[in-house]
Amino acid sequence: MTHSANAYSRAGVNLDAADAAKRAMREAIRATHGPQVLGAMGGFGGLFALDTSGLREPVLVSSIDGVGTKLKVAFSLNRHETVGADLVNHCVNDILVCGARPLFFLDYLALGAMDADQATAVVRGVAAACREAGCALIGGETAAMPGFYSPGEYDLAGCIVGLAERDRLVSGENIRAGDVVIGLPSLGLHTNGYSLARAVFAEADLSAPVPELGRSLGDELLQPHRSYLREALPLAEAGLVTGMAHITGGGLVDNPPRVLPDGLAVRLDAATWEVLPIFRLIQRQGNIFWDEMERVFNLGLGFLIFCRPEHETQVLAGTATAGGRRVGEVTPLAPDAGARVVIEGIA
Amino acid sequence: MTHSANAYSRAGVNLDAADAAKRAMREAIRATHGPQVLGAMGGFGGLFALDTSGLREPVLVSSIDGVGTKLKVAFSLNRHETVGADLVNHCVNDILVCGARPLFFLDYLALGAMDADQATAVVRGVAAACREAGCALIGGETAAMPGFYSPGEYDLAGCIVGLAERDRLVSGENIRAGDVVIGLPSLGLHTNGYSLARAVFAEADLSAPVPELGRSLGDELLQPHRSYLREALPLAEAGLVTGMAHITGGGLVDNPPRVLPDGLAVRLDAATWEVLPIFRLIQRQGNIFWDEMERVFNLGLGFLIFCRPEHETQVLAGTATAGGRRVGEVTPLAPDAGARVVIEGIA
Repeated sequence: MTHSANAYSRAGVNLDAADAAKRAMREAIRATHGPQVLGAMGGFGGLFALDTSGLREPVLVSSIDGVGTKLKVAFSLNRHETVGADLVNHCVNDILVCGARPLFFLDYLALGAMDADQATAVVRGVAAACREAGCALIGGETAAMPGFYSPGEYDLAGCIVGLAERDRLVSGENIRAGDVVIGLPSLGLHTNGYSLARAVFAEADLSAPVPELGRSLGDELLQPHRSYLREALPLAEAGLVTGMAHITGGGLVDNPPRVLPDGLAVRLDAATWEVLPIFRLIQRQGNIFWDEMERVFNLGLGFLIFCRPEHETQVLAGTATAGGRRVGEVTPLAPDAGARVVIEGIA
Repeated sequence: MTHSANAYSRAGVNLDAADAAKRAMREAIRATHGPQVLGAMGGFGGLFALDTSGLREPVLVSSIDGVGTKLKVAFSLNRHETVGADLVNHCVNDILVCGARPLFFLDYLALGAMDADQATAVVRGVAAACREAGCALIGGETAAMPGFYSPGEYDLAGCIVGLAERDRLVSGENIRAGDVVIGLPSLGLHTNGYSLARAVFAEADLSAPVPELGRSLGDELLQPHRSYLREALPLAEAGLVTGMAHITGGGLVDNPPRVLPDGLAVRLDAATWEVLPIFRLIQRQGNIFWDEMERVFNLGLGFLIFCRPEHETQVLAGTATAGGRRVGEVTPLAPDAGARVVIEGIA
């Protein structure tokens, strides 16, 4: 844990401000700590007492990720409170796909110049999302790297570790033709497709209200990455799902095949969910083929759950708070199929 | 694990080259996998079957870190094979301080532009160091982030997770006055002090041989961060050490206090180890006070082990392969002491 005195004093920032920032950061971090977190902050490693009672074969499930070029939007608007949720929730969903419950998280924040207020805003956002996920923030590195990042800019990455019972791991290998696909709505782009979106909106005023969106473009593009933990994990632990897919880089078309067994395809019916207005705006303004849109964006579906038809009612009930709905089904892969995910009626 | 097709195809690189690179990367990653690594690469989360047999109270010990501005030296020399060892060994040593054995690692590589050869060189270096540490590389993210990094440049961070028995955790709390300090030599700057070193050598030719160093400045500055796992872990597991300190940011003066109980200080005798020529060169050329040198650099000692005097012989024997030697002792902290680490005879 080096969200600590060292990093600040070396960066030569105002010490009183840095102390206040450090205290604010520490309080937020400490609020994520339960009795499993051992030792004081500031040690060389974060300590987490593992409770595997009740598990026959515990499996640790881990993922590392960044926020990507969505950060540029945060820089433009000078708003740094939401990127932490983007980072944490992305990671939470990644291990959720395997059926894992988050245990702890560590973040890496590299700044062009040490700015205590900015670093505090980012880390408090990380801590708040960790707390929301029941996940302890047990480590972090805040590095001033002049010459790497422009002043006022930074990169942010993080690593999550979760736990699952081996025979309850969800891999997708049991998915079969006839399985139902339940889609959980996204809140916006989440953390993918920003390089394309930013190119489309390069000349746009991020602060001006856009009636079609009901908010400004900046607010829309900073909509947080949603976590599906609360809805999906109980269903996975109850053995009601055959597979899950987090719709990240690669969009609606390239992510489901990461869990789909050979010989199977997915048919989605775009009439069954709301392709959010932001995606229609990007498509129209950028004059982008829908084929490409489908491979870059989540198009309104942030997470897919595969289940047997006989469990559809239970899965819909369990995901109702997140707006879960039946969006398609698993089919055999046609011999001449171009893609393994076909979206009908989107254009 | 997104060291995968997606990242490459989206970046629009030559597909044949990317495929070859991906294969090379995958082979290196797979070589770190033992039977505890479950599932295929390319899933959403890395899976590690945890074996806690023989442990009464397993504790996970974790750390996240970057390589820092040492990367700029790698960019200057276009050499990307060694930064992986810097990253991994730094993390290995951080959790080693707590007495933890590495289980697995995940890396985050963010590039200005996707360059398959460069990414492969970096990730192979990460994988080789993981293999050396008996640590599985179970996840990674390779992100092309144009606009964040200059073409040909990147940032690299990583996260390690290790395991320890709770009542064998080493915290330093049992260190007491009279304990002996065993120092393990560093190979150079490791990963700290590069912003200062690069400022000092801003005008220097990195390729020209420097007689005083026995190699070029570039070779010297890229000397890898050394791992002390092989020597220190068996001693910790045998209960022979009272504390350990990894000499990273904050140098020889600010790191020992991270594990030293209140009221204690450390006295080091600079005549007992070699203050490597690179540090004398930096000090002379930059006209830097030794006080500052001591707070920025490891000055030739990468790792300290604290032990009782009656265990000194065993600890020296156990660290002989790494060049361990007695470099000082723990003393009571004098009431008017300015620093908790005093280095005698260095100037």
